[in-house]
Amino acid sequence: MKLYGYWRSLATFRVRIALNLKGIAHEEAIVDLQKGEQLQAAYRSVNPQGVLPSLFDDDGAADGAPLFQSLAILEYLDETHPQPPLLPKAARDRSRVRALALIAAADTHPLVVPRIRNYLEQELGVAEPARMAWCRHWIAQGCAALEANLAADPRTGRFCHGDSVTLADVCLAGHMVGAKLFDVNTSAYPTCERIRDACLALDAFAKAHPLAQPGAPRPAG
Amino acid sequence: MKLYGYWRSLATFRVRIALNLKGIAHEEAIVDLQKGEQLQAAYRSVNPQGVLPSLFDDDGAADGAPLFQSLAILEYLDETHPQPPLLPKAARDRSRVRALALIAAADTHPLVVPRIRNYLEQELGVAEPARMAWCRHWIAQGCAALEANLAADPRTGRFCHGDSVTLADVCLAGHMVGAKLFDVNTSAYPTCERIRDACLALDAFAKAHPLAQPGAPRPAG
Repeated sequence: MKLYGYWRSLATFRVRIALNLKGIAHEEAIVDLQKGEQLQAAYRSVNPQGVLPSLFDDDGAADGAPLFQSLAILEYLDETHPQPPLLPKAARDRSRVRALALIAAADTHPLVVPRIRNYLEQELGVAEPARMAWCRHWIAQGCAALEANLAADPRTGRFCHGDSVTLADVCLAGHMVGAKLFDVNTSAYPTCERIRDACLALDAFAKAHPLAQPGAPRPAG
Repeated sequence: MKLYGYWRSLATFRVRIALNLKGIAHEEAIVDLQKGEQLQAAYRSVNPQGVLPSLFDDDGAADGAPLFQSLAILEYLDETHPQPPLLPKAARDRSRVRALALIAAADTHPLVVPRIRNYLEQELGVAEPARMAWCRHWIAQGCAALEANLAADPRTGRFCHGDSVTLADVCLAGHMVGAKLFDVNTSAYPTCERIRDACLALDAFAKAHPLAQPGAPRPAG
């Protein structure tokens, strides 16, 4: 498969994790978000919305349309490559896993992406410290919502739902890595931190980590 | 089933449509977003995140936890009440439908909800006209992304994907009704308008419409 992504894109991170968990061979084409390449014609011809990621699954489909929107890609990968499963079997449990994933991927992440920060700066004149406060506020709100559910629900285990990785963990890992990139103090969310650590201890997550990708800054020291 | 919702909540609108399409009997408990009731203790005990909707499916599950996050609820309803199906059969098609749904429900709607408008006002001092411009901008961006996909993909039919209603239509209808509530000119998105009209001509959509709910303002004239 061919993934269009970027080291810092948390939505790409999610798809990379799933590809690794499923053992699906793939190459990654870099679309430099910090240069705005996602908005240029070359990438717009792949994804008219100008957002990352996109995935070509090279299954030979005549229309050749790429897959887009990370959660829709994750569901596709789980349906076409069922092992290991990223959703539990019972409908109520599947709904919980998807809902946790959406707290991170729908209610939080879209608030802190480049196009939002650019609008705050360019259209509303919001200065850098207030833009960072905006990002940190919404990320912390996402942590609080995840923590409240995870800490209260007996279905939480080593991972978000039981002791196997699900879509919720893929999204929680992206959320918590994003929190670190934005320098959010997450110590008030111990269940989130514990599950993040359990995820990042797995090769599939570690190798997908934004800071492990080409073009990422090297950790200091 | 028991749905916690509010007339103006577009996420509740989505769930109401699906309940109607599936013919599932339900009652609705009103949580007044304009009074901030979603953040008060009574509702927080149902949904710690303080967002709408939540759904109790009264299936007698011992834990009694409500379902939350509208897209996760829609998937649950489709899995437990398969007729009529809200997703096509082929994995690629299912992924397209989910991706279109996410353009509206993840990339757009979370940007215009009350908590965002409140933050813009109270933390960033953004005046009412600029807050409305923010909402209209992101709604128009969502329309443009939907239109680009729908107009270019031969799988688009009477509805977003072929000639049957899917999750994408449920979310598109919510998006376009939201556009109207925010007074967005959508004439540049004719495919979105056409599909919106096809949806709203169906009883399941019309009866779920925000302005048809208790507490909604009556149309002028």
